[in-house]
Amino acid sequence: MSFKTTATISSFGGKLLKLTHNASTTGCEMALNLYLPPQATANRKVPVLFYLSGLTCTGDNCAEKGFFQYGASQKGIAVVYPDTSPRGLKIQGEDDAYDFGTGAGFYIDATAAPWSTNYKMESYITSELPKALYAAFPELDSSRVSITGHSMGGHGALTLFLKNPGMYKSVSAFAPISNPINAPWGQKAFKGYLGDNQEEWKKHDATELIKKWKGKFNALIDVGTGDNFYKQKQLLPENFAEAAKSSGNDKELTLRYQEGYDHSYYFISTFSTDHVNHAAKYLFE
Amino acid sequence: MSFKTTATISSFGGKLLKLTHNASTTGCEMALNLYLPPQATANRKVPVLFYLSGLTCTGDNCAEKGFFQYGASQKGIAVVYPDTSPRGLKIQGEDDAYDFGTGAGFYIDATAAPWSTNYKMESYITSELPKALYAAFPELDSSRVSITGHSMGGHGALTLFLKNPGMYKSVSAFAPISNPINAPWGQKAFKGYLGDNQEEWKKHDATELIKKWKGKFNALIDVGTGDNFYKQKQLLPENFAEAAKSSGNDKELTLRYQEGYDHSYYFISTFSTDHVNHAAKYLFE
Repeated sequence: MSFKTTATISSFGGKLLKLTHNASTTGCEMALNLYLPPQATANRKVPVLFYLSGLTCTGDNCAEKGFFQYGASQKGIAVVYPDTSPRGLKIQGEDDAYDFGTGAGFYIDATAAPWSTNYKMESYITSELPKALYAAFPELDSSRVSITGHSMGGHGALTLFLKNPGMYKSVSAFAPISNPINAPWGQKAFKGYLGDNQEEWKKHDATELIKKWKGKFNALIDVGTGDNFYKQKQLLPENFAEAAKSSGNDKELTLRYQEGYDHSYYFISTFSTDHVNHAAKYLFE
Repeated sequence: MSFKTTATISSFGGKLLKLTHNASTTGCEMALNLYLPPQATANRKVPVLFYLSGLTCTGDNCAEKGFFQYGASQKGIAVVYPDTSPRGLKIQGEDDAYDFGTGAGFYIDATAAPWSTNYKMESYITSELPKALYAAFPELDSSRVSITGHSMGGHGALTLFLKNPGMYKSVSAFAPISNPINAPWGQKAFKGYLGDNQEEWKKHDATELIKKWKGKFNALIDVGTGDNFYKQKQLLPENFAEAAKSSGNDKELTLRYQEGYDHSYYFISTFSTDHVNHAAKYLFE
């Protein structure tokens, strides 16, 4: 479970650690980035924000282009940037498409062969990775954790929050895949990872999950109106908003449509400080 | 001279334009990025900051990873991210090395064949490109212009400022190649582009130029102490500082050694807002 630190990079007054470890859930070496803000010391624990990346990304893209470190260094929050799937397993078909297999784990535990052996990203993100991190880095406060993500990672953030009451203090998302059972990306992934039973798919769909949610739902969601995937109805945030409203879970939901913004890291970087501040509100309350 | 806009991307409340144009100085199509902050309108001109990139980069790297748009949107400054050389000319040897030819124009006008026909980056940056931009974008204020850059682009920023009194209101640099005639990168480039006469080289060396400078020299320079190229003596900022001091040009020079920072965009993004603010001080005075 122990981590290998392959690089330590100064960033916004803190340190970005490039880490690898052998993960048992995914059965392979996993790489990630961990940002420790300047406030993190042996004697002072800092809260933790998980950032889940979108299709095709690794933990590197957002660490380089998302500028979460800027806000995180101001607030004193550690940021974890995990990878988006197992890698290098040589499963037949894993590299055939950008939206399935490598780089496209969808933050669920696959139940259909051949994916079910290694594609356990839900267990990895919610259990193995945080446990390993909290054991290895005592400056991380395991009792104060929030989650955010982009696109497929926005789906991951919303669903892992809704599936694990109490695990995260808050949730936010950039251009999340909000209703995957009704969108091409989600349907392809869920069919491949979960099989044909669409009742099983619903357990991993944010719009379905919010309908049954009881409790606080303090979420910030940003979607760009110039986002081609939004226009192509891959994201469907309006379905999620409607389900949140009809179930009375929209009281603390802020869904912002950002005029003209696209799906890229230019969009994420513009609003990442808002998302850090959103998390900080609950991590420091 | 007119520009083609290949993309318009929302970023920090403004627009990042991806542009191409046919440049006569370099004899090829040149690509660049132009950031127009939200303050730029047809009726309100904004000052301009040129950012010159380092070896191997295009205008894209810093637009994605440098975080300049954040500060520029706060201050109301346009940022120009030019390319680092002509491209695609099929000159023999142009793609043989990362530190000469393509991606390595060094912001000088070559005088040695075969480079002297197209490698005219000094004329491109100081004359053709700004003229074309000011003609095409009336929201840019041609009377308020500053310059900055990284590594090879830091050399470009310092030397173009010192060779063109009055052209730029201020200058700053990240990890600049400060004394190229005494460093391997500079010696290779100057020999290739300028020939064997080392007296000619001195005309393009910031440390030589500052010795003869008369006037204000309001410069901010950041260098990371963990920068391997600094350690390998490719940058030599200490030679520049010594020359500035001995010539009495260090009164408004701020040279900061940033503990532990490397040569990457993680370093640039951490301090880019300081450099925007430095330029703003003189662009808005």
